[in-house]
Amino acid sequence: MPKSNIKTSKATKKVYMDYASSALSVSANPGAIHSLGVAEKNKLEKSRGIVAGILNAHSSEIVFTSGATESNNLAILGLVKAVKMPHIVTTNIEHASVLEVCKHLENTKQAEVTYVPVDANGVVDPQKIKKALKANTILVSVMYANNEIGTIQPIKEIAKEIRHFDKINNKKIFFHTDATQAVNYLPISIPQLGVDLMSFNSVKIYGPKGIGALYVKKNTPLTPIMFGGNQEFGLRPGTENVSLAVELSKALQTTENKKEKEIKRLTQLRDYFIKKLKSKNVDFVLNGDLEKRLPNNINITIPNIPSDLLVIELSTRGIMASTKSACKAGDGKASHVIKAIRSEIKPARNAFSIADAGEETDGSIRFSLGRQTTKSDIDYTVKSLSEILTKLKKWYTPTPINFFDLK
Amino acid sequence: MPKSNIKTSKATKKVYMDYASSALSVSANPGAIHSLGVAEKNKLEKSRGIVAGILNAHSSEIVFTSGATESNNLAILGLVKAVKMPHIVTTNIEHASVLEVCKHLENTKQAEVTYVPVDANGVVDPQKIKKALKANTILVSVMYANNEIGTIQPIKEIAKEIRHFDKINNKKIFFHTDATQAVNYLPISIPQLGVDLMSFNSVKIYGPKGIGALYVKKNTPLTPIMFGGNQEFGLRPGTENVSLAVELSKALQTTENKKEKEIKRLTQLRDYFIKKLKSKNVDFVLNGDLEKRLPNNINITIPNIPSDLLVIELSTRGIMASTKSACKAGDGKASHVIKAIRSEIKPARNAFSIADAGEETDGSIRFSLGRQTTKSDIDYTVKSLSEILTKLKKWYTPTPINFFDLK
Repeated sequence: MPKSNIKTSKATKKVYMDYASSALSVSANPGAIHSLGVAEKNKLEKSRGIVAGILNAHSSEIVFTSGATESNNLAILGLVKAVKMPHIVTTNIEHASVLEVCKHLENTKQAEVTYVPVDANGVVDPQKIKKALKANTILVSVMYANNEIGTIQPIKEIAKEIRHFDKINNKKIFFHTDATQAVNYLPISIPQLGVDLMSFNSVKIYGPKGIGALYVKKNTPLTPIMFGGNQEFGLRPGTENVSLAVELSKALQTTENKKEKEIKRLTQLRDYFIKKLKSKNVDFVLNGDLEKRLPNNINITIPNIPSDLLVIELSTRGIMASTKSACKAGDGKASHVIKAIRSEIKPARNAFSIADAGEETDGSIRFSLGRQTTKSDIDYTVKSLSEILTKLKKWYTPTPINFFDLK
Repeated sequence: MPKSNIKTSKATKKVYMDYASSALSVSANPGAIHSLGVAEKNKLEKSRGIVAGILNAHSSEIVFTSGATESNNLAILGLVKAVKMPHIVTTNIEHASVLEVCKHLENTKQAEVTYVPVDANGVVDPQKIKKALKANTILVSVMYANNEIGTIQPIKEIAKEIRHFDKINNKKIFFHTDATQAVNYLPISIPQLGVDLMSFNSVKIYGPKGIGALYVKKNTPLTPIMFGGNQEFGLRPGTENVSLAVELSKALQTTENKKEKEIKRLTQLRDYFIKKLKSKNVDFVLNGDLEKRLPNNINITIPNIPSDLLVIELSTRGIMASTKSACKAGDGKASHVIKAIRSEIKPARNAFSIADAGEETDGSIRFSLGRQTTKSDIDYTVKSLSEILTKLKKWYTPTPINFFDLK
């Protein structure tokens, strides 16, 4: 059947005259009403639908942001703006993008904040969260899994306590969780978790940098923290980054598909790592609970050896580990997470060291495993660490502290 | 010469154990202190240096953001936070990411704002800016070139007026310009422009989406608008997106290299477009000054024909144009820029129409040209537009408005 000439001419000739909207026609502005813009908008909404589906949420509850830091800022700053002098409950081991927001709100007298301390194993007690709730509490923000020591927080149980408090007091406290470190290995179905707001990003789930998301439950009175266009349901202005949204949705899908298998594989590798360290007679303290822990996290303190030095020594042997959060690396301060668990008086349950875990101020070193990690990587890492320690111990002889010399 | 075995083993074995920082070792966290992190940090700082070099600025004055909307928000919100009830001077044709920030500050009683009107050609008079300055003025924000009608604002002249006012009154008013649309075609040397803050992004200069920058002159008392890590000199928390920063710096370099040639080529194409439209007896009004105008912008109003319909008709013929800012497309409201120039009483200088330009409320259509635009594209566009108008005019017969019927 011969095609219509007009139709063919219409279909083949493409003239892009919207450079001021987006210089590249291949990534046209999804806000444009021409066909390339509409196509981009469709891709964006398809990605949003995929993300929503995985979370068992509605598409209109997924807001794309530039990353988890922005998601956390939007969740907290965007919620407290609605109320005068609200009260926030959080923990003392949150990521900087939660803690610094809270500190800013305190410093500027915009909110009152209670930092509930975690126990010596780095886990918060839901009863302590419950006790912190007050008449003017508007928000509870507790991370799903800690980025440094990998401890998993009892989100469901905290949600139950909040809902119970809500019921008795006929009010509504919003519950936010930073799930950035959890998405790879923990269940993320919103109805199961019972949260109102959940932050995560792409780069921790093998997707590209520059994009994150915030789940915002319907009827959550969130206000934007930046102003401009009406994108993302009026909550996040600026041209949507469609290609990154597509990649985020794919990364999340892959993560879900691999989750079960990876949990099993990495738990074995993690436990092998710890066992191997013990067998080498490495003097160390495992930071954080061993059971309530991400399968890919090993965080240890090695008494008397500066952890920055260990990371650099490992790096020269091709092993990439970290001391604390990269967001706070290089500021010369001890990790607030390690300080939080050390400040609890009772010795950590997982102290495999003869040293009293309560006294260690030597920082910590985090090995976080992932899809490419093999048993042989761990053998090489433990062997290298053992060699480095043998070398360094000549220089860093433990000096017993004479407490009588201290004021 | 035989290589050292140890050295080889060190160099070849690579073990990535920092998945919690960034799941992909190829884009390690630039905040990490291991060698991959340091390498990423170096790439980031090299990109920052390239951008700074092009602006004749210092590296420490370049802050990477997620885009121009964030840059504009940071520039304005970040500056006014430092002062109580400051006064801001801006124009009535700024991008939504400036105007909406100003409106938010007014609505929340955080700042007082003067919106200086542009003239009928869409250009602001520096004397009017000068007259708007007051004792509590802290910021002047005037876009370098308008996104809809492409008019170029007299930034240097405004800077001179501000500095003169500063000198007389022994104060310091900060001057911000949104240069998003200007970077491709106008000089962007900071010392020449005399601004303290300048926003731009990557997607308008043929770079990827998801990244922008804010030039922040040394000693500008900017505070962050989001909180978390200490990245970007403490002004923008969140893991830096190194690959996008690299691409932004490359895109900016390419833009600079092509600038002179593209200005010449596109000015010719733009003027050819307008001449061609006239030769087809298309009844139109050119919106915005013809001389003080970006070389790639043609923005017209066609009396009595809804511009949304024109964009869609053009789109079915493969031509991608736009009505107004994509950030505000689809909200059903008339463009604030077109309204601003129409509200000036005198007829627009470039009205090639017999209709009184002051009466047009039919919206506008923007054709923005770029690197791939050819003369044949313009021929096809004008021909198509002429055909569409012939078709549509049967349906949209001009109805004379009876002013006596209106209240």
